[in-house]
Amino acid sequence: MNSTEDVFADELKKRTEEAQAVIERFLPKAEGPAATVIEAMNYSVEAGGKRLRPVFLMEVAKMYGAEKALYEPFMAALEMIHTYSLIHDDLPAMDNDHYRRGRLTTWAVYGDGMAVIAGDGLLNYAFETAAGAFDACHDLERMRRCAKALQVLGRNAGIYGMVGGQCADLVSEKAASPVSEDTLLFIHRNKTAALIDSGLVIGAVLAGAPEEDIRKLHQIAEEIGLAFQIRDDILDVSGSQETLGKSIGKDAAEGKATYVSMHGLDAASKEVSRLTKSALLTFDGLGRTDPFLRDLLEALVTRTK
Amino acid sequence: MNSTEDVFADELKKRTEEAQAVIERFLPKAEGPAATVIEAMNYSVEAGGKRLRPVFLMEVAKMYGAEKALYEPFMAALEMIHTYSLIHDDLPAMDNDHYRRGRLTTWAVYGDGMAVIAGDGLLNYAFETAAGAFDACHDLERMRRCAKALQVLGRNAGIYGMVGGQCADLVSEKAASPVSEDTLLFIHRNKTAALIDSGLVIGAVLAGAPEEDIRKLHQIAEEIGLAFQIRDDILDVSGSQETLGKSIGKDAAEGKATYVSMHGLDAASKEVSRLTKSALLTFDGLGRTDPFLRDLLEALVTRTK
Repeated sequence: MNSTEDVFADELKKRTEEAQAVIERFLPKAEGPAATVIEAMNYSVEAGGKRLRPVFLMEVAKMYGAEKALYEPFMAALEMIHTYSLIHDDLPAMDNDHYRRGRLTTWAVYGDGMAVIAGDGLLNYAFETAAGAFDACHDLERMRRCAKALQVLGRNAGIYGMVGGQCADLVSEKAASPVSEDTLLFIHRNKTAALIDSGLVIGAVLAGAPEEDIRKLHQIAEEIGLAFQIRDDILDVSGSQETLGKSIGKDAAEGKATYVSMHGLDAASKEVSRLTKSALLTFDGLGRTDPFLRDLLEALVTRTK
Repeated sequence: MNSTEDVFADELKKRTEEAQAVIERFLPKAEGPAATVIEAMNYSVEAGGKRLRPVFLMEVAKMYGAEKALYEPFMAALEMIHTYSLIHDDLPAMDNDHYRRGRLTTWAVYGDGMAVIAGDGLLNYAFETAAGAFDACHDLERMRRCAKALQVLGRNAGIYGMVGGQCADLVSEKAASPVSEDTLLFIHRNKTAALIDSGLVIGAVLAGAPEEDIRKLHQIAEEIGLAFQIRDDILDVSGSQETLGKSIGKDAAEGKATYVSMHGLDAASKEVSRLTKSALLTFDGLGRTDPFLRDLLEALVTRTK
């Protein structure tokens, strides 16, 4: 690791810890007759991860000068939405996964009924938390920004975002014919890129960034989200289990179509480079900049683990 | 049926149809690669029911003079939340019910994975729909009311409302010792009364009703919600299967504790009367009135089906 990489790794660690502290501040206390569902929710959020989406949200918010009282609730809300989707994805009725990041999944600890309502509780609490940001809005302009941010959060999480992608994925898994490239791109754009879009766009909306920049941030999210997913599929084929910390070759074993299975490793790598370059070019055309965020966007798709 | 009852029944039918039309207007179109989940969501909402919560919301909104553009999205959102909870409650992981109102449940038609995300999609779309009301707010005061209404909607649906009640119910079903009266009341207050609270309070919040009236509406919701639930438990014991259109004696067969099993039929009936009288007295102390709504509150707890 050279010193530039050291600096980036340190900065990333700092940002992740900052995001972590914000998320923890917004988690509900497990008490009273509903303590178990709250415990299950917090167990799942605290399982950790890179906190990538809230870090994005925070960086963009700072870049455009949004106020903490507005963007922090949205950071926590976005991570709650990400986490609820993992809880429900792991259910026996869905992927039937027993472990995630080396820990038992929520249903494996609390039972599948409790895991269903823990996911519901988190999704709902995400909106409760985000709606709390209105209490810090003392003028019409800030109210409008908050309302717009809430609409972005909802759209990206729901049927026109992540849930839509999950549906297309479920349907294509059960379909007799192989998935088309259009459907595959639809799945990636909605299942993966949509929550990254919330991360990149909400901070700018809350700061009242120019429409032109918001449009560009949507574009960056789509390209980076897609590159991120293809890179994931490449690692599933070429990565070592040791570096990744998860079983590799899972997609191929399950006969799941990916960009790699459709176009081969070389073309997939080239597509990741093309998408990344295009996203960074768009990033450089924004009215503001943030060297760390630029590095993070690049690191995301060049990672080997 | 005497003529007063005829008039009420006609009025109720009219209101239900009005609410129905509003709800349908807000349902998403089932198209594109996510068509299946949208179809499953709409299948569940269209299964019908009394539309009690949106009717409440509409009546209170009209009583205080709220604007349609503000309250109609909330009517649809509230019914979406009610419906998502039924979809998830019916899952094999929860109550494992194959039929509801004589139709196959969502998971029985679409599979349990699709039913999980159909519930998620509806819960999320409820917030997307409600957040759409902000687009009709052109001043700070209306923005504030909308934000407050959204907070009420979220709180009553989540861990401090319905999800909290579902959790206490799940935990007590699996507990070795019988449920205490406190826990039973907690479950009813949260699982049943909380969404009725959204119905009675949100319309008043959107109209900018006095704080004192909003406080009273919360109180009415708690009493009517509890009376409604106890009445349900009475009918489960004393009603005929034919009038109710569902199997009776289910709670007793499952050894589930209810207000009736704890206190007997007589005491339960007296408690329903006491709660109803108290709620109607509070209703009569509101700054506005609505004879139909008063009749509806009364009818809810004197119903025989």
